[in-house]
Amino acid sequence: MSNVKRVYTFGDKKAEGNTSMKNLLGGKGANLAEMNLIGVPVPPGFTITTDTCTEYNTLGKDQVVGLLKADVEAAVKYVEDIMGTKFGSNENPCLLSVRSGARVSMPGMMDTVLNLGMNDDAVEGLTKKTGNARFAWDSYRRFVQMFGGVVLGVEAKSKEDHDPFEEIIHKAKETKGVDLDTDLDVDDLKQMVKDFKAACKAQTGQEFPDDPWEQLWGGITAVFDSWMNPRAIYYRGMNQIPEEWGTAVNVQAMVYGNMGDNSGTGVAFTRDAATGENIFNGEYLINAQGEDVVAGVRTPQQITLEGSKRWAKLAEVSEEERKSNFPSLEELMPTVYQELDQTQKNLENHYKDMQDLEFTIQDGKLWLLQTRNGKRTAAAMVTIAMDLIREGMVDEKKAILMQEPAKLDELLHPVFDKEAIKSAKVLAKGLPASPGAAFGEVCFFADEATEKAAAGKQIILVRVETSPEDLAGMDAAKGILTARGGMTSHAAVVARGMGKCCVSGAGAIHIDYKTRIMTIDGVQYREGDLISLNGTTGEVYEGKIATIDPELSGDFGGIMKLADKYRKINVRTNAETERDCKVARDFGAEGIGLCRTEHMFFEGERLIRMREMILADDEAGRREALTKLLPIQRQDFKDVFKVMAGLPVTVRLLDPPLHEFVPHEEANQKEMADQMGVSVDVIKAKVEDLHEFNPMLGHRGCRLGNTYPEITEMQARAILEAALELKAEGVKTLPEIMIPLIGTVKEFKMQEEIVRDIAEKVFAEKGDKLDYLVGTMIEIPRAALTADKISEVAEFFSFGTNDLTQMTFGYSRDDAGKFLPIYIQKGILKADPFQVLDQEGVGQLVEMGINKGRSKRPDLKVGICGEHGGEPSSVEFCVRAGMNYVSCSPFRVPIARLAAAQAALR
Amino acid sequence: MSNVKRVYTFGDKKAEGNTSMKNLLGGKGANLAEMNLIGVPVPPGFTITTDTCTEYNTLGKDQVVGLLKADVEAAVKYVEDIMGTKFGSNENPCLLSVRSGARVSMPGMMDTVLNLGMNDDAVEGLTKKTGNARFAWDSYRRFVQMFGGVVLGVEAKSKEDHDPFEEIIHKAKETKGVDLDTDLDVDDLKQMVKDFKAACKAQTGQEFPDDPWEQLWGGITAVFDSWMNPRAIYYRGMNQIPEEWGTAVNVQAMVYGNMGDNSGTGVAFTRDAATGENIFNGEYLINAQGEDVVAGVRTPQQITLEGSKRWAKLAEVSEEERKSNFPSLEELMPTVYQELDQTQKNLENHYKDMQDLEFTIQDGKLWLLQTRNGKRTAAAMVTIAMDLIREGMVDEKKAILMQEPAKLDELLHPVFDKEAIKSAKVLAKGLPASPGAAFGEVCFFADEATEKAAAGKQIILVRVETSPEDLAGMDAAKGILTARGGMTSHAAVVARGMGKCCVSGAGAIHIDYKTRIMTIDGVQYREGDLISLNGTTGEVYEGKIATIDPELSGDFGGIMKLADKYRKINVRTNAETERDCKVARDFGAEGIGLCRTEHMFFEGERLIRMREMILADDEAGRREALTKLLPIQRQDFKDVFKVMAGLPVTVRLLDPPLHEFVPHEEANQKEMADQMGVSVDVIKAKVEDLHEFNPMLGHRGCRLGNTYPEITEMQARAILEAALELKAEGVKTLPEIMIPLIGTVKEFKMQEEIVRDIAEKVFAEKGDKLDYLVGTMIEIPRAALTADKISEVAEFFSFGTNDLTQMTFGYSRDDAGKFLPIYIQKGILKADPFQVLDQEGVGQLVEMGINKGRSKRPDLKVGICGEHGGEPSSVEFCVRAGMNYVSCSPFRVPIARLAAAQAALR
Repeated sequence: MSNVKRVYTFGDKKAEGNTSMKNLLGGKGANLAEMNLIGVPVPPGFTITTDTCTEYNTLGKDQVVGLLKADVEAAVKYVEDIMGTKFGSNENPCLLSVRSGARVSMPGMMDTVLNLGMNDDAVEGLTKKTGNARFAWDSYRRFVQMFGGVVLGVEAKSKEDHDPFEEIIHKAKETKGVDLDTDLDVDDLKQMVKDFKAACKAQTGQEFPDDPWEQLWGGITAVFDSWMNPRAIYYRGMNQIPEEWGTAVNVQAMVYGNMGDNSGTGVAFTRDAATGENIFNGEYLINAQGEDVVAGVRTPQQITLEGSKRWAKLAEVSEEERKSNFPSLEELMPTVYQELDQTQKNLENHYKDMQDLEFTIQDGKLWLLQTRNGKRTAAAMVTIAMDLIREGMVDEKKAILMQEPAKLDELLHPVFDKEAIKSAKVLAKGLPASPGAAFGEVCFFADEATEKAAAGKQIILVRVETSPEDLAGMDAAKGILTARGGMTSHAAVVARGMGKCCVSGAGAIHIDYKTRIMTIDGVQYREGDLISLNGTTGEVYEGKIATIDPELSGDFGGIMKLADKYRKINVRTNAETERDCKVARDFGAEGIGLCRTEHMFFEGERLIRMREMILADDEAGRREALTKLLPIQRQDFKDVFKVMAGLPVTVRLLDPPLHEFVPHEEANQKEMADQMGVSVDVIKAKVEDLHEFNPMLGHRGCRLGNTYPEITEMQARAILEAALELKAEGVKTLPEIMIPLIGTVKEFKMQEEIVRDIAEKVFAEKGDKLDYLVGTMIEIPRAALTADKISEVAEFFSFGTNDLTQMTFGYSRDDAGKFLPIYIQKGILKADPFQVLDQEGVGQLVEMGINKGRSKRPDLKVGICGEHGGEPSSVEFCVRAGMNYVSCSPFRVPIARLAAAQAALR
Repeated sequence: MSNVKRVYTFGDKKAEGNTSMKNLLGGKGANLAEMNLIGVPVPPGFTITTDTCTEYNTLGKDQVVGLLKADVEAAVKYVEDIMGTKFGSNENPCLLSVRSGARVSMPGMMDTVLNLGMNDDAVEGLTKKTGNARFAWDSYRRFVQMFGGVVLGVEAKSKEDHDPFEEIIHKAKETKGVDLDTDLDVDDLKQMVKDFKAACKAQTGQEFPDDPWEQLWGGITAVFDSWMNPRAIYYRGMNQIPEEWGTAVNVQAMVYGNMGDNSGTGVAFTRDAATGENIFNGEYLINAQGEDVVAGVRTPQQITLEGSKRWAKLAEVSEEERKSNFPSLEELMPTVYQELDQTQKNLENHYKDMQDLEFTIQDGKLWLLQTRNGKRTAAAMVTIAMDLIREGMVDEKKAILMQEPAKLDELLHPVFDKEAIKSAKVLAKGLPASPGAAFGEVCFFADEATEKAAAGKQIILVRVETSPEDLAGMDAAKGILTARGGMTSHAAVVARGMGKCCVSGAGAIHIDYKTRIMTIDGVQYREGDLISLNGTTGEVYEGKIATIDPELSGDFGGIMKLADKYRKINVRTNAETERDCKVARDFGAEGIGLCRTEHMFFEGERLIRMREMILADDEAGRREALTKLLPIQRQDFKDVFKVMAGLPVTVRLLDPPLHEFVPHEEANQKEMADQMGVSVDVIKAKVEDLHEFNPMLGHRGCRLGNTYPEITEMQARAILEAALELKAEGVKTLPEIMIPLIGTVKEFKMQEEIVRDIAEKVFAEKGDKLDYLVGTMIEIPRAALTADKISEVAEFFSFGTNDLTQMTFGYSRDDAGKFLPIYIQKGILKADPFQVLDQEGVGQLVEMGINKGRSKRPDLKVGICGEHGGEPSSVEFCVRAGMNYVSCSPFRVPIARLAAAQAALR
């Protein structure tokens, strides 16, 4: 055992480990080693291996400390030598941090101790070095508190008791009559250190350890112990991390940027995170700690001279003033700057991506504290990727994999002006139902929204929920806000289709239609009041926040082209209007995966005919109304087929329950009665008759087609006649007729037979024929379970994962808002399953459906047309599951293209 | 090929085939042979093998007729010899029937021709033999029509045209100015035969074949052809019958009971079908056809002397009159009677069950036309089975397998008086939601039902649907009728629990609460009008129909005891009141599989406290109300545990959405407001807030417990405190705490942790502990899909197949009434999946759930608590799937016990 290497040192651009040793050194330890190897100046230190943690758990503390002793002492000596410091010195003390570091990051689950090595001598040394007694004593105070809590286990005696350290702080402030920690002076802090130590002794019965070595062993063993604390065990259980992996311990020299005017701290980006421009940039402060940069009390200075000049111009600061008060690091500390610049180049070259760095300059010496891939805007994301290709830094595949597909939304929709949003007040938060930003006047009724918009006003339509009757008003509004409904509610689905900003299910909003008042947290908002919506985050703001329209760069087109080169499945769209189809085709859609025919029935004459059919008492009456609907629907299909010439179009037959086509408000019922020439009571009776307790599980989908076959007949005829008429005009169509809500193969067969019969008739009448498919949506769990039966007759499957999710979870998408947010907050669900496909449960049914389906029909065409078809992780699942295509709303097509390419490359 | 035997003769107590040759001779052919072998006089004939059908389909008609010719001619000769008849004879014609007969019965799917051999000579012969020219000519007319349609394919020329034969009959009656076929005389029939033949010639261009041989070959090949008709193909597809099986053809001599006073016809039972008494009985008519017995124009006579005397006594007929006008067969034809009596004994001995016989006496010679296991009442079913054991005719296992478990309902509930029901008028038909019969006055409101019942009236509660608020009124009523809702609607479930008659979802009924009028088919029924309900059939009758109360015989007890001896799984009950628990225990329940705690909250103070909790704005308010509920619920559990002492009791935590506990009608909302001391607007706002679009998929089950953990805490405490208090009294309890509506294992874990924490607290407080289990319902598809994860923590599974069926099919049990009846009628579904478990779809999830569950916890206890737990075929599935128990409503416990025994024996 004793000739096993347990301690790996790093520092001064040398290291015993490297990045490939993650299993042994943990993720952090391996990276610290690697950074040294590529010449990055990181504070020196050493890593105790994960295997030692396992030894610790079997052999126990004493034995492992024995095994480590010589190596750790040598490693500390190594650190002291590099830093020129000495453990416990009253001149130049060596202070250390002790941190955990497992193979994979387990943020916050294990223990950390900072400023280790502090005692009455070291605090003197730190005071001398920094010239800042308060800082030194505050560090001492923090160290005793942290070490006392983490290593000595000092804590509140019972749930009812206070934490003893917080109690002491509280009393000290009370005695002095101040509110803030920062109001305490050096003497107060000195007293506090004493009191803390006394509190530790009171609970442990031992003196607080002043010996730095005793502190160090305490810190190391505390980190090992924390691998087995309940929090970490729970986290491992949640994330399938084996206990045997163990954690490494990283011990590293502390560095301070507030040791005088020769010290400082800053953050930097290797490229511009907003635009993607290849320019090194960042900010720093002299004689400061990292938190001072963040706090914004002092104005940070620019790192580069060029950046500093740009800043001065914008801030209207004269060159003279700039030079004297806000010089760049490049000017102030040219040597440090040169090293930093070289380091950033090294890092970008090494990580092959834009880096976000944190550094500290201690006594004129540069130390890198952290480097990571920098966060960036969508515009920067595509520009940086294309630049990196052009610079030969990454290949096309890597560039694609660097993208975050969901971010593309930012490029396709308006966003809030960054300055304007800073001072905005959030009123409520709902679901990010449809991305983009908008402001406008509150309006509660769809018809009024249409009028006001026509009169030139910007409108935000605010409803408890929307229904198909509100379609025109939704189209006229700039944004839509609902109090109820989830990610696949009517409002959400329609808004996404329109590419319009929508926040749904904002539960804090109470709407009183009668008084035309919306109340949020007791505050009333009336018609005409201005509000703003962020559909990308779900936030609702008070007042008007300016928006910026999207602009598509050449780099966006470049990335899309690359995505198409590498992806292996098709991307279609869910659309049914000529306009949406055109948008989708422009975004690269390769067909329609879901054309919801019912959306064609909600306006004008269509709606009247539809209602005539619903009111009819018998088949003859229904047929009469359907005959009038036929030419209208046929024209709709011609419009769609024309835009989609040469591409497949999947048309779903009538799906929603009929009650969606009848009005539920008295006034509208009267209007309908007049239109139909019947009494209001007849309408009311029909509406009552159509009422269902759980319409989502009711008389809809193929259940309509099987109880009223004449509806299917009319729709099949409209589709095939439209296709044949276009054929005569030389337009190629590929119609795919989709039967919705199939649960048993017989349901499908009955509908299929109707379609085939009609097709024969239409072909005979027109004296011409064409190829078409008849397939089904798999959206009922039973359809997935019996997919082998269904695929014997169905020519394609399209997974309707909205409904499939509803029924697999038993969650109504319109009602889940009552508990889903709580479920996500409590960690019961990792994500809203209506946004991100639940691969564990719903995904099982999808895979079962595909495998069973292809067991009988190996070349079965399979796609997805639920909202998940535009969500990156779900798209990846669809690719893995072997689908032929995904289909999503038009504005999500680019996201799906990119996600599909990534999936193909992974 | 030619030395293959294709024709098997039977007759005169000899036969070439036997019962083991079903594959070759078809079911019917093998049985006809077997009957001869056991000495039953059946009309002689022959069977052409099923293999010949297959030859027919490959070789074609001509070749197969060639292969058959010699054998068929010999076989006809054999028949003629036995019968002493001759094909086409004008003295004693041989007339034949030709029928299909596959391995399994395919009723009505293939063709039949009767009276084959009829022509102008034979009709003369038949007239002479029967002395009944009208009968002879009517037989001739029927033959031409049947042969013309079936063999010659004469039919209406188009959908718009009439059938040519019906057209001729219609015209004949019109010309003569009569309404009924029976008003036509011999001359009319003679003309009709001519016209029919002409019609055949007109369509086929050929003379109608008068040659008996030509007729016979036509009949035989028509039957072979009908194996491939679309109807038969469809039926085979539905029932998985392979095409290769083919059909046999059975040719048999026709016999007539109306050939004079030495002929007759009758039906008989080897035992009493009503009481089960072991006494031969039956009725006959001299010089009559089978249809005359059924028509009831003449009074049938009794077969046995004893029966005849019994009849005379009941009918108040003097012995003299009886002897002269209604003599028994035993007296009138002693030899024939002796043969019949011997035959019935042989048959019962052979089939080991009570037989229902049809016989004809032609010219003093007895012919058996049919024998089958006789239909019987539930009382007869158990008595016959126990008698057969006592007589040594069957063993216990056979006796159990002879039972129809579902029939036991008849023994447990009132039934209509048989005489009274005969003249009753059916008003409407709904679902047979809860068995039994009842009559009473129509009452539309639950509270009024309670009052009226208290005043001594018999009430039928009539509602559009029921809700928990109606509980007391339902209990007070004799029967419940609803216009909406399925087999698992609130009304149905509650009524079954109470053992009370209920018809649900009677869609023809329209109820206007305002005017207090129910309209059926345009007829109005008012409060106080009498109606009667049959909950076993779903029929609703006008007026009062007397009912007979059930009486349990010793034989019922005997069968139940046997069932318990052989069944291998336990039978529990779904119950939550002391009364229901007692009933269930009396019926043999071995524990409670589902105690629905919410049913405990719907009355009096409980409801007030529940509403207080719902109205509370925060956790503190909810806790306060729950504290008041605790002692009430604890007492409820004590009551249940006491009745179930020593048996396991599965308690389901709160399941329904909270809106079920608040009133939805204005008046009740006002009442609640007064009770709670708040304004009506507060109540309305809460009700509105609790509204859900699809409550079945909403905020219920463990979603309540996870958003309001304090509810779970209270319930767990009530259960465990109750159990410990009883333990102190020496009562043994086995509580099983069941978390409802689990979809993810984390949902379960959170609830389980709460229960375990509370348990530790309660045990500490009481200074005692006990064993208890924490498990879950598997009722969400996702739970079945991830059952391996869930069983790592859950100690038992109970399949909630009501909800599982809802979500697997996507059918709301409250709304499916709109399409389920049509689906069943169209053959899309074989049965209502809420009544009979869908083994193909839902069953897959159940099996998956069990297998996955036991993969992690091999001894996982598994049961079912959906309504299917009391349905025989579903119980059999549960046994096969390896469940430990089924649980059903108290009155279904005997059925489940019997079904479980049958499943164990199969």
